[in-house]
Amino acid sequence: MSIEIVPIGFVRGGRAEARDDDWDREQAVIELDSGQFQPDALAGLKDFSHVEVLFHFHQVAVDKIVSAARHPRGRTDWPKVGIFAQRGRVRPNRLAVTVCPIIAVNGLSLTVQGLDAIDGTPVFDLKPYLSGFAPRGEIKEPGWAKEIMADYW
Amino acid sequence: MSIEIVPIGFVRGGRAEARDDDWDREQAVIELDSGQFQPDALAGLKDFSHVEVLFHFHQVAVDKIVSAARHPRGRTDWPKVGIFAQRGRVRPNRLAVTVCPIIAVNGLSLTVQGLDAIDGTPVFDLKPYLSGFAPRGEIKEPGWAKEIMADYW
Repeated sequence: MSIEIVPIGFVRGGRAEARDDDWDREQAVIELDSGQFQPDALAGLKDFSHVEVLFHFHQVAVDKIVSAARHPRGRTDWPKVGIFAQRGRVRPNRLAVTVCPIIAVNGLSLTVQGLDAIDGTPVFDLKPYLSGFAPRGEIKEPGWAKEIMADYW
Repeated sequence: MSIEIVPIGFVRGGRAEARDDDWDREQAVIELDSGQFQPDALAGLKDFSHVEVLFHFHQVAVDKIVSAARHPRGRTDWPKVGIFAQRGRVRPNRLAVTVCPIIAVNGLSLTVQGLDAIDGTPVFDLKPYLSGFAPRGEIKEPGWAKEIMADYW
């Protein structure tokens, strides 16, 4: 059983190569597919400060996908954890979710800050960030999960 | 151009029918596909308080998908906004993302609180919630986006 996903658009600009960290230096434009959408698909999005972007880690080769445990970023000083206990790219279905500040909405173009996706990345969905969808209750995370984010943005 | 997505597992239990609101009353189990995964795929996930669940709004018929603007929940007292300025089910690619408290991890089973997905829902990915992936900067959202969440959890 499989499901077919069609990109709603693509990332234009931003970083040309996948490289960790310093993502908030980048601005990128998400251009919706003009064959599928009119500008009203983005109507009202500018009333939100942030957008959740679902995209594809399209440059990860299928034979590099990990379905078991690994050290995040290969860092053996961090614990070996399951692929579903980390957010690395080499994951089943190669799906990514990142929340970004919205810079501008113009026609079919959405400009965002710090999207950790490279030029040409297929985008599968955009969702406004609602504060009601923030985690309910206290957040707990292991030490490595804070360390890995130290220079990310 | 399309991409093939294979469910990593399915939701078992929880609510039988799609119905808005009161989701935090529900507990559901996400059972990973034993043909693809061993329990080490979830190793270390219990050190996080929350998990981000990517799933499919599989009961939405393709001909019900909206690619333009609509009133969220059909509420004409709320503005007509683009499908990418709301989180409704009838969206292109029918992808969902929800952050849930983790209740338990046992073998290939992950029990979560308040997953707004019904029994039998295909799951596409699980990601630990890292505080570093929270929105950067102040959050702004329109009034309707707060009202729609009033009774959601």
